[in-house]
Amino acid sequence: MTRTHTLHAHYRLVRDASCALSAPLSAEDCCVQSMPDASPVKWHLAHTTWFFETFVLERGEPDFRPFDPAFRVLFNSYYNAVGDKHPRPQRGLLTRPDLATVLAYRADVDRRMQALLGAGVTPAQAALIELGLHHEQQHQELILTDLKHLFSRNPLAPAFAAPPPAAAAAPALGWVDFAGGLVEIGHAGRGFCYDNELPRHRVFLEPYRLATRLVTNDEFLAFVEAGGYVEPAHWLSEGWDWRLAEGREHPLYWRREQDWQEFTLGGLVPLDRQRPVVHVSYYEADAYARWARARLPTEAEWEHACAGRPVAGHFAGRGAYHPAAAAGAGLVQLFGDAWEWTSSSYAPYPGFRAGAGAIGEYNGKFMVNQYVLRGGSCVTPENHLRASYRNFFPATACWQFSAIRLARDAPPHPGSG
Amino acid sequence: MTRTHTLHAHYRLVRDASCALSAPLSAEDCCVQSMPDASPVKWHLAHTTWFFETFVLERGEPDFRPFDPAFRVLFNSYYNAVGDKHPRPQRGLLTRPDLATVLAYRADVDRRMQALLGAGVTPAQAALIELGLHHEQQHQELILTDLKHLFSRNPLAPAFAAPPPAAAAAPALGWVDFAGGLVEIGHAGRGFCYDNELPRHRVFLEPYRLATRLVTNDEFLAFVEAGGYVEPAHWLSEGWDWRLAEGREHPLYWRREQDWQEFTLGGLVPLDRQRPVVHVSYYEADAYARWARARLPTEAEWEHACAGRPVAGHFAGRGAYHPAAAAGAGLVQLFGDAWEWTSSSYAPYPGFRAGAGAIGEYNGKFMVNQYVLRGGSCVTPENHLRASYRNFFPATACWQFSAIRLARDAPPHPGSG
Amino acid sequence: MTRTHTLHAHYRLVRDASCALSAPLSAEDCCVQSMPDASPVKWHLAHTTWFFETFVLERGEPDFRPFDPAFRVLFNSYYNAVGDKHPRPQRGLLTRPDLATVLAYRADVDRRMQALLGAGVTPAQAALIELGLHHEQQHQELILTDLKHLFSRNPLAPAFAAPPPAAAAAPALGWVDFAGGLVEIGHAGRGFCYDNELPRHRVFLEPYRLATRLVTNDEFLAFVEAGGYVEPAHWLSEGWDWRLAEGREHPLYWRREQDWQEFTLGGLVPLDRQRPVVHVSYYEADAYARWARARLPTEAEWEHACAGRPVAGHFAGRGAYHPAAAAGAGLVQLFGDAWEWTSSSYAPYPGFRAGAGAIGEYNGKFMVNQYVLRGGSCVTPENHLRASYRNFFPATACWQFSAIRLARDAPPHPGSG
Amino acid sequence: MTRTHTLHAHYRLVRDASCALSAPLSAEDCCVQSMPDASPVKWHLAHTTWFFETFVLERGEPDFRPFDPAFRVLFNSYYNAVGDKHPRPQRGLLTRPDLATVLAYRADVDRRMQALLGAGVTPAQAALIELGLHHEQQHQELILTDLKHLFSRNPLAPAFAAPPPAAAAAPALGWVDFAGGLVEIGHAGRGFCYDNELPRHRVFLEPYRLATRLVTNDEFLAFVEAGGYVEPAHWLSEGWDWRLAEGREHPLYWRREQDWQEFTLGGLVPLDRQRPVVHVSYYEADAYARWARARLPTEAEWEHACAGRPVAGHFAGRGAYHPAAAAGAGLVQLFGDAWEWTSSSYAPYPGFRAGAGAIGEYNGKFMVNQYVLRGGSCVTPENHLRASYRNFFPATACWQFSAIRLARDAPPHPGSG
Repeated sequence: MTRTHTLHAHYRLVRDASCALSAPLSAEDCCVQSMPDASPVKWHLAHTTWFFETFVLERGEPDFRPFDPAFRVLFNSYYNAVGDKHPRPQRGLLTRPDLATVLAYRADVDRRMQALLGAGVTPAQAALIELGLHHEQQHQELILTDLKHLFSRNPLAPAFAAPPPAAAAAPALGWVDFAGGLVEIGHAGRGFCYDNELPRHRVFLEPYRLATRLVTNDEFLAFVEAGGYVEPAHWLSEGWDWRLAEGREHPLYWRREQDWQEFTLGGLVPLDRQRPVVHVSYYEADAYARWARARLPTEAEWEHACAGRPVAGHFAGRGAYHPAAAAGAGLVQLFGDAWEWTSSSYAPYPGFRAGAGAIGEYNGKFMVNQYVLRGGSCVTPENHLRASYRNFFPATACWQFSAIRLARDAPPHPGSG
Repeated sequence: MTRTHTLHAHYRLVRDASCALSAPLSAEDCCVQSMPDASPVKWHLAHTTWFFETFVLERGEPDFRPFDPAFRVLFNSYYNAVGDKHPRPQRGLLTRPDLATVLAYRADVDRRMQALLGAGVTPAQAALIELGLHHEQQHQELILTDLKHLFSRNPLAPAFAAPPPAAAAAPALGWVDFAGGLVEIGHAGRGFCYDNELPRHRVFLEPYRLATRLVTNDEFLAFVEAGGYVEPAHWLSEGWDWRLAEGREHPLYWRREQDWQEFTLGGLVPLDRQRPVVHVSYYEADAYARWARARLPTEAEWEHACAGRPVAGHFAGRGAYHPAAAAGAGLVQLFGDAWEWTSSSYAPYPGFRAGAGAIGEYNGKFMVNQYVLRGGSCVTPENHLRASYRNFFPATACWQFSAIRLARDAPPHPGSG
Repeated sequence: MTRTHTLHAHYRLVRDASCALSAPLSAEDCCVQSMPDASPVKWHLAHTTWFFETFVLERGEPDFRPFDPAFRVLFNSYYNAVGDKHPRPQRGLLTRPDLATVLAYRADVDRRMQALLGAGVTPAQAALIELGLHHEQQHQELILTDLKHLFSRNPLAPAFAAPPPAAAAAPALGWVDFAGGLVEIGHAGRGFCYDNELPRHRVFLEPYRLATRLVTNDEFLAFVEAGGYVEPAHWLSEGWDWRLAEGREHPLYWRREQDWQEFTLGGLVPLDRQRPVVHVSYYEADAYARWARARLPTEAEWEHACAGRPVAGHFAGRGAYHPAAAAGAGLVQLFGDAWEWTSSSYAPYPGFRAGAGAIGEYNGKFMVNQYVLRGGSCVTPENHLRASYRNFFPATACWQFSAIRLARDAPPHPGSG
Repeated sequence: MTRTHTLHAHYRLVRDASCALSAPLSAEDCCVQSMPDASPVKWHLAHTTWFFETFVLERGEPDFRPFDPAFRVLFNSYYNAVGDKHPRPQRGLLTRPDLATVLAYRADVDRRMQALLGAGVTPAQAALIELGLHHEQQHQELILTDLKHLFSRNPLAPAFAAPPPAAAAAPALGWVDFAGGLVEIGHAGRGFCYDNELPRHRVFLEPYRLATRLVTNDEFLAFVEAGGYVEPAHWLSEGWDWRLAEGREHPLYWRREQDWQEFTLGGLVPLDRQRPVVHVSYYEADAYARWARARLPTEAEWEHACAGRPVAGHFAGRGAYHPAAAAGAGLVQLFGDAWEWTSSSYAPYPGFRAGAGAIGEYNGKFMVNQYVLRGGSCVTPENHLRASYRNFFPATACWQFSAIRLARDAPPHPGSG
């Protein structure tokens, strides 16, 4: 009973947060798709609702009738087991249903979900609902990154929010050593996690060290100005081809005007050199690391380094630097600043089991040619952050808040980790 | 004075017609671009306004101040002489300025134009304004064809208007003979025309005959069912490659369900076999004609056949069949039903002179790899129709109301033309 | 009898000429395809042989047995009526049959053809054989242009022949006026022509003038150096897009080293400024003409201007300048120097009839989105040149010896033509 | 001294083997490139020679003079540190230098290398030469796979060798269990290895089992006939998109005629159902494994399973089945049958160090978006096979002899490994 009550409140909280995100936007802002990888805000609002209607209500309501039968296909993202789906690159063509209808769809499904929750749900239903809420939080992050991309393509450079305040000076870059050995990674405990975080398992690590903080815009600018985008020796072969094909000469949202500018959710602003560099591809992260005589961490190194570190504490200080970091003595910016590229290809953990049915398509089928990112960004919902979380994107992806934490091999004696 | 007065009224009439077209649409409907060839309705509304602001007000207002300086680039279509332009395929990314702002832009420019017109304009200004109004009428047609394409991509198949009524039975196809000889084509008289309709000039024609009416859906369906899309011998080599690459098996907006359907501005309706087949490419028109042991007319044949025939009379009966046609004795559907593909590549008339300055970019620079269409369609503004009008599109274009009138060589004795 | 005797000799002459062209080449040179538009030399040798085997021997030999049944598909170019064909872009993958086998195929078909010719042929057979020989001469020209393209892609810049000698100084550019009026074009007389040169028919021409000679490299270089490739106002809209997409900054085979170089069949040599500029696309020809305040001629203007001028006389002086030209008083370089782009889209003449059967696919099905070139180039076989010959290529084509003769409208009084 | 002597003999052996491979081929066969991933045989012959000239002779010959200075660019594959390189997709355009010249190049470099070897080489030189010989052996394998691809595109289906004999019946598929735990992988001992096989390091493995033999054509055909290529649930999302885009309905070289055929180096032959399925992409291997309720092994699982197993013993029996396998009791076909896809993304081992200078570009820069294959195929030179060898290709690659060995998680008690 209590659990349902909590779930009920959680449901309301998460669902309201999505609407709050879109509240300042016009129907036009919510409708357009700026590239195949990004989806319209309206589509995110509808698809997250479709999840509850299709996976919970359709099975749970005694006399289920869909809000609109066409939505089953229209707002299916990729679940082949559910049936046909509308092609992803055409999500932006859906001027109908309009935004008002999609908001009405949300309200209708919320009303029916609350009725279901009020009547009590089975543990299986509760698990599905919890999954749906985490799924919706993922889409809340995408709403912001996709909108940022859309606005970045507009010559008027619209702002979604107030410009970010100037960051405090970044502390000197320090290193923290870890002894490695046979360690455990993967989700532990009773909280929610996705199937791809399981099972918790042993991994053997050589001694390593991690940088205390993320690479700053200032440091990355030094790479740019040292010819980092001109010298192929720094780059993976495929990365160099990507750079040439895309014509990249700096991170995606930088603009080389008289002074360096950066497009942000607060519009076009002078590049803040103290902030972490964000929106870099795996190729750029890897090239920077090689140039800096370092490397990217593996996901196991990253997760092991987090062990025992509180998520909330760091998160509270998004953008600020923790006193420990100022002294160069501890890891900061692990959570809630930017996603950190790891050198680990996204693959199943030993013993991985995908969920049953359509839900089983959630993660497993994307496990090829993607790289794992860890941590969580400034637009990741707070309670979505955890040490075992595995985000993943192709090496070309730049439109997420993706950043760089350096790693190095350490001498083979016990470290401070 | 009278002239300005008439121009003043004409201005108001044309400008209001654009707004009336978009009135039933949502801001979302007006914002999205469904393919690079099509533009968003909002862009059409803004670009036609930009024309007056840039070519008339900027030179004619004593202390000109743009409504928004950014619009100069944003809503330039292709006039290189005016400066930079926003890339065509990205017109659909402009969620800002929103529709309300674009409507305010229209109102502001209209107010200033009316002040200018009230104060009296020079003949040169009057000519530019007249050009601007005809330009806007072209975009009124595009608003409807582009919207139709957008809605056609939506699985919900939205309707912009009431479904079209069933057409009367098409009369039997007859032929009208023309003796040819040395004839004149090109615009004559004092009314408005574009530079590409001039100069009027002599052309020598062999005897020919034209079909009394357009090819119907019923006739085209016979071609489809006879394997017209399967047998390469009917097709131009390039047309066959196009058909394969696009996977075309029937005209663009047909749907092969249990019965044949057609997507229209009134939504998805049963294919009306009595209506002219529309939305065919040059390749399809040419293939049909070859299959029917006929050919497409040249633009000179078409225009010569029109000489002396009233535009208004035919136009009044859009969709209906004229008594003369019912008897198979005269040409019908020349104006206001559908654009008729001709076999003439779009080229300058002998002695062609492009206008001076940016306006000179209006037509001439598109004179390659396009084919001329004549007549005017059911979405062409009525006073935009005339016998000398030269519309033009690439052979691949299908999203206009493009249709087929057959022609044949005639025996070398005097015909009835 | 005499006719067959002549045909017999003609057959031997043309067939031997093809082998002579390929004699200096290695089997490797003959095998590779450098782009989809070009074919390997070996393919040309085989395909021209396939023409005789398929269209003459297969119907004419009492107990026909193909040299190799697989060749029927392998060396069919585009005759759908004959059956399947090997895809054009994959012609370069055929390392088997090897060159020796293809030469044996030629010898075998020649032996059988000579037997047939010796026994006497019907008029229909004779016509087919004559067509086959002209067809082979077209491919002789393609052998050289395709080989030139292949060698141009090789960093070693191989030479097929001795470098061309320095050209004599080009005479000053003059103009010859033509009164126009109702004139006749199209093939006349009893000699061979293709179906697309018929029927001879009347065309009305306004007064015009033609430049006495082709545009030189020197003149075109002035266009390049005046920013001709930088200023979009000179270009057709589609031409400008082509230029940007291809990254063109000068004609295809020019190289901007310390001095301007040009790749020729004689290898890489200094750009000879007195020679006609060649290997320009329709877009480049059109842009140059607009920059020079002129235009390209129509094909009717060109052909009418040639009327009564001897082909052989000009041809004898390939590369040299005729005394009349030196005085600026007459047209030179009409035949045997370079193909001259006309502004005429390739279309059927009024009353055009394609041949029957597979042969009917020879020309008609390419009549869209191509432009007519007239004259004949330095690699066109001499007896292949005639005033009514219509060559045609897409506006993008550069690998033929395509050049520019300027035209202008003339004042409306009698000229000297 | 002895070492140099051995190296001398090894040099001669490997270099002669390359020439022997190409001996039955025509110059045409050696010149053509069938796709960007494949290179012409002539290019392989030249590039492997370039390696010795550039990395050994240029630094080691007192008065080095290149055989041909142009070859430095022409036959550089991807070593940016060496300077410019000829674009990979254009390797097939090089009809010059011809095959005879490339063979002369080989002979010249061999003569100079033998002189150098005769005079004695430093350990660093010896290491480079050894690397060059292993490099050449890699290209010997590519000569055969690239030639197979070229011949497969030829409708004549040429044969390079005698058709393969019918295989013995495959034994029933068995499983061998491994206990896992903390194991070591990576190259050990004093023999040659590439930088990517080092350092030897510890990895923790969960208990697992491996199939005793490779998946057969018969088993894979069952997958095809069960709709394996129709049901997206079996496939990685990206794999399914690949399948659709490529139109794949079976492995690359299979042909669905009346009976199933397979294109082999011995030409087109009936599909031998007892042989291992080869030429499958990672996506196909992964889909088959999922359908078979199994998975692909990791590279660590594979290498650990090999520990202590003789390479030569298995190799001797290429294509045959070892008695142990017939009993289903042991692993067979580990070496010399086909490359086995692993689920491991190609990444640096912990502590990986790339070589210095241009040689350092050998492996490291390809470590993204590729998957590791283990074992070695029927066209891999025998002394090139070893347990620690890491081959790698993108998930899309099919033109190598790539195959499937299934793996499964094992229950957590000691296995038989």
